[in-house]
Amino acid sequence: MSKAITSRNEDYSQWYNDLIIKAGLADYSAVRGCMVIKPYGYALWENMQQVLDKKFKDTGHENAYFPLFVPKSLFEAEEKNAEGFAKECAVVTHYRLKNDPSNPGKLIVDPEAKLEEELVVRPTSEAIIWNTYKKWIQSYRDLPILINQWANVVRWEMRTRLFLRTTEFLWQEGHTAHATQEEAIHETKQMINIYASFAEDWMALPVIQGVKSASERFAGAEDTYTIEALMQDGKALQAGTSHFLGQNFAKAFDVTFINKENKSELVWATSWGVSTRLIGALVMAHSDDQGLVLPPKLAPIQVVIVPIYKGEESKPVIDAKATEILNALKAKNIKAKYDANENNRPGWKFAEYEMKGIPVRIAIGLKDIENNVVEVARRDTKTKEAMPIDGIANTIENLLDEIQQSIFQKAQEFQTTHITAVNSWEEFVEVLDTTTGFISAHWDGTADTENQIKEKTKATIRCIPLGNPLEDGHCILSGKPSTQRVLFARAY
Amino acid sequence: MSKAITSRNEDYSQWYNDLIIKAGLADYSAVRGCMVIKPYGYALWENMQQVLDKKFKDTGHENAYFPLFVPKSLFEAEEKNAEGFAKECAVVTHYRLKNDPSNPGKLIVDPEAKLEEELVVRPTSEAIIWNTYKKWIQSYRDLPILINQWANVVRWEMRTRLFLRTTEFLWQEGHTAHATQEEAIHETKQMINIYASFAEDWMALPVIQGVKSASERFAGAEDTYTIEALMQDGKALQAGTSHFLGQNFAKAFDVTFINKENKSELVWATSWGVSTRLIGALVMAHSDDQGLVLPPKLAPIQVVIVPIYKGEESKPVIDAKATEILNALKAKNIKAKYDANENNRPGWKFAEYEMKGIPVRIAIGLKDIENNVVEVARRDTKTKEAMPIDGIANTIENLLDEIQQSIFQKAQEFQTTHITAVNSWEEFVEVLDTTTGFISAHWDGTADTENQIKEKTKATIRCIPLGNPLEDGHCILSGKPSTQRVLFARAY
Repeated sequence: MSKAITSRNEDYSQWYNDLIIKAGLADYSAVRGCMVIKPYGYALWENMQQVLDKKFKDTGHENAYFPLFVPKSLFEAEEKNAEGFAKECAVVTHYRLKNDPSNPGKLIVDPEAKLEEELVVRPTSEAIIWNTYKKWIQSYRDLPILINQWANVVRWEMRTRLFLRTTEFLWQEGHTAHATQEEAIHETKQMINIYASFAEDWMALPVIQGVKSASERFAGAEDTYTIEALMQDGKALQAGTSHFLGQNFAKAFDVTFINKENKSELVWATSWGVSTRLIGALVMAHSDDQGLVLPPKLAPIQVVIVPIYKGEESKPVIDAKATEILNALKAKNIKAKYDANENNRPGWKFAEYEMKGIPVRIAIGLKDIENNVVEVARRDTKTKEAMPIDGIANTIENLLDEIQQSIFQKAQEFQTTHITAVNSWEEFVEVLDTTTGFISAHWDGTADTENQIKEKTKATIRCIPLGNPLEDGHCILSGKPSTQRVLFARAY
Repeated sequence: MSKAITSRNEDYSQWYNDLIIKAGLADYSAVRGCMVIKPYGYALWENMQQVLDKKFKDTGHENAYFPLFVPKSLFEAEEKNAEGFAKECAVVTHYRLKNDPSNPGKLIVDPEAKLEEELVVRPTSEAIIWNTYKKWIQSYRDLPILINQWANVVRWEMRTRLFLRTTEFLWQEGHTAHATQEEAIHETKQMINIYASFAEDWMALPVIQGVKSASERFAGAEDTYTIEALMQDGKALQAGTSHFLGQNFAKAFDVTFINKENKSELVWATSWGVSTRLIGALVMAHSDDQGLVLPPKLAPIQVVIVPIYKGEESKPVIDAKATEILNALKAKNIKAKYDANENNRPGWKFAEYEMKGIPVRIAIGLKDIENNVVEVARRDTKTKEAMPIDGIANTIENLLDEIQQSIFQKAQEFQTTHITAVNSWEEFVEVLDTTTGFISAHWDGTADTENQIKEKTKATIRCIPLGNPLEDGHCILSGKPSTQRVLFARAY
């Protein structure tokens, strides 16, 4: 099987699809818009989960699990939320199949097993969760509730892309309940901060934190905080969101509590989530025409050792030394693999591990051992260097740190050079098509103008950055007065 | 809120439900037959997952994720499997809701968004997985495939019980593909062994390993291996199964490989799973009328320290000493909690932590500190003892081991005294209603007799134990000759 993939310049979108498939991260499935997450892709997700889960628990959250199905009457209770998701809901209407009388061996839906009330497959869980919180919350002593769940959700998307937008996807969704508005807003901000530090420190992905415009908000939220990242083609990707839900769900589900003054009040809510979409972001941000480039801190395999055998008698010598190095790496908790498989040639292995984005490759032959060195290749820069075997585990440990930093800095530089301030519509349109990336521009604050810009250019307001400086100006489209710039981009 | 629960003698079934709710393991939901797994219950599941996941990975398995939905045409491909699950399938027929024109603010299923092919919500994933394996397997080099997935599944059960039988449940399902029958059978046995050692070493739950009779087999399997445990009411509970699927799914999905002799062969399969049902088993096996009794190795909190304040000035002294003990315990990776909440009295806390099954409770007051001791209470035996503060972390560490052993031994003794050999129908019926537990009896090997016994007594064949000795005898019901005894019981 040829491992060549389409180059980014030729067709960025095809490059991405090729890469996901050839690197073994995921595969298409028989179900429209759903994918199979293969072991290598799932290992990446597990690494992400582990880090995020710890961050959630360190900030006082607990995991729980709520039903997959939402009865239609609950789903429609919070009207804006329902309206936002109604068009993409998979709906269970029956609970039994039966033999097809006219077609032996085939099954049909049993018309007698029709549900009295249809069940929506959760596109998000606010409804089912707030209907439950109602039972759990009586007094201020029951607050806050700080719960997260790791789950699958289904949104019937018309156009799907592996990892980036699939009908079913895996995610975590936090749902918290608070006694005060301040506390809920603090939680919302805390979680977007956690997502930002995860993206930057672990995924090596610089992000911009900001607030969504009203029309880009989560359906049912008062405010949506977002982290926005840039991909190599200059398009933006929303990588995580945290919503201040106000009292909207408390109103819809009648969730009140008795405060310290013995008065009844509505409960304040937040929700926040990241999904397997992050894997798509990781791939698109760092990888190249030879395959994946993975940040060492999330790579399922950080170091691969490849023996360069020269005749049968070289095998035991090389195997012994390689195993020694392997064990030294493992002793430092470095995820290392020794690939002594003789069915594949070293060149094949080099290409394979490049495709899979293993951050460091060590090649070891007889001559190397004589010289007490190994050849160390970096996946990110594709540089090779002979390095002494003495202290190799320390060397590699430092190198992995250096690679992590270096991947981040490269992405950071890309981001810095792809935020362009413009002051006119002409500039805006030109930068969108040439420089690409984020465009910082004045906007009159109306949904109407926002929509017109989207229709004309497919660019959307990605966010109003946190701590955005106030600055008088004029909307690039309407010319009306504006008090601050916002970030536009074409986005995934 | 009163914490009293129904006693086991009064109503075992009600005791169980009360306990699950009052201990905060789970709650009922608005969806028929589905439950909410609350943080304390989910923490138990996470602990189980962590241990099992490591055992799977240590034996070469990798995690992956396959779609929630199975197109009907794939679902029906393996006829026996389809027949076995058809009657309990939730079916998605539509992918959109729309506003109800006659009822503002309400939604209806959009009749124009009917799926061409219905989607079954997976009751188990053989179909979708083997349809995928077909693409992944060409040559013997592609084998074995050793994949596990952690997922939710849905089976539309008519009678549900918290954890034991719910419409949606969480589980892991392993799906492996092999080049030879021997290798697949070896895998099937290996996995039932892993389940057995997990049940015994971690859940403190003695189990009997065996093979199911033909009529109790998994739909589509050639052989089903099972671990069977006894609950305190003398009923059996199937705690995990591992299936040798032969070439049934390979035939249904046309999955062949080219062997080393360059000939095409059908692939051999296994599947195996355990679910959140294990939490029900854990609760039913060990708990008592005061609440949960959890084995220390799986308890989310292993030790709770409760201060016995006497006047304001005692607080700093007690808090300081308690924190010292807490830290010493944590330094040994013991999951300990200090509950210094002044809103609740010690008596309330004692009852609460008894209900939650915390294995060890340490009470500490001023006098204790003066005497350099603490009061240590065991949840399983309800014994209390003053123990020296010096070396307390070591003492507790050993005590937790002792409790783990002790809980297992108690359950083991219960099992030993609840396996009764009988030689006649009269004895069989009597033991079933008096001694309860497993009944070891001769059976003529026919499904007909097995069914008659089930209809007459509700007892089923739980398994033919592994390594069962051959012994000539006569079937307890039909009187026909038999070559071995099998284990009957009433079961959950």
